[in-house]
Formats: sequence, structure tokens, C-alpha cells
Amino acid sequence: MSKKSSDSNIIYVGRKPPMNYVLGIVTAFSGAEVKEVTVKARGQAITTAVDAVEIARRRFVKEMKVSKIAIGTEEMPPREGESNSRMISTIEITLKRS
Amino acid sequence: MSKKSSDSNIIYVGRKPPMNYVLGIVTAFSGAEVKEVTVKARGQAITTAVDAVEIARRRFVKEMKVSKIAIGTEEMPPREGESNSRMISTIEITLKRS
Repeated sequence: MSKKSSDSNIIYVGRKPPMNYVLGIVTAFSGAEVKEVTVKARGQAITTAVDAVEIARRRFVKEMKVSKIAIGTEEMPPREGESNSRMISTIEITLKRS
Repeated sequence: MSKKSSDSNIIYVGRKPPMNYVLGIVTAFSGAEVKEVTVKARGQAITTAVDAVEIARRRFVKEMKVSKIAIGTEEMPPREGESNSRMISTIEITLKRS
């Protein structure tokens, strides 16, 4: 049914409110074959990603567990009118059905 | 010299720019006996905490490693004029000298 394999469930968190991504996490885990979902974010969206994971875990997918959290840095192209590329922090939260 | 034991080095990240907390991390690790530092933040400061850890790791304390990251939720008292308590996300990043 699903085109994705169970380990390719990645949710990219952006500037929308956390509940948008909570829905994404809950939907991803709704497939019985899905055992792992990864939530990725950069910059200010890092807080939104943590919020979404916490809301999903506490309110909706009780059998979900955080199995790994990794942080890192990515180089982004310069903003218009600037000459230096920017470094931006990233987070990757791996969730597992327990 | 230090009043704190080596495992009680906790840095609370708030609303200041990341560099303020980078300085805190670098200073904490400057004690030869310090093997572990924990960086804690809530809400929007979560991004600042990740930024500070990443800057410290990349630019200043190369032998530093992220040994553990935990996320959670805390209940905060209601804002003035509101009646409901608020849930706020938290992060705890444990750093080790490698």
C-alpha cells in the first residue's frame, strides 16, 4: 500500500505550528508496518520539532519512544545581499514504536 | 578550587545570544577535572542551546562530545490573566570530554 519502506519515514519540520507536525507523526505511525519515524528540523524549527514530538508522545502515540537524538550543523547559502554562508544547527529525532 | 563537583556542571540556557552560553560551556570545560557538562533549556531557548553546543564543539572545545540528549515536557504556571498551566518542552544535552 505504502510507497515508502518502513525506515524511510522522515518528517521535515518547518515554520508551521507544532500541531501540523504532530499530525504528520501520528499519521506516519498509523501504518501497522511502520516501526520508525525520523523528525528533522533546522534553526528555530528545532523547538517546534521537540514540541511536536512531545505532544505526539504524550497525547497521541503512547507506545512511541525517542530512540535517538542527534544534533549537527549545516552550511546554508548566504542570504540575499550578504556574502558569507551561514551555519545553521540541525536536529534529528528518531522515534520508535516500543 | 571549585566548589562544584565535576558532575554538577549545569548550564541553563535562556534568552541571551548563543555566544553567552558558548562562553559558559568553554569555561566549564576549562577545569582539568571537569569531564561532563550538562546544558539545559526550555521553550524557544532549545534552539539557542543547540546552537551554543554546536559552536562550542566546532570552534572551541574540539575534544568535546555529545554523550546524551534528552527531551521532555514541564508544566509551567499560567501566564498572568490566563487560567491554564502551560506545557513547555525541555532539552538536556550532556557533553563529555572525549
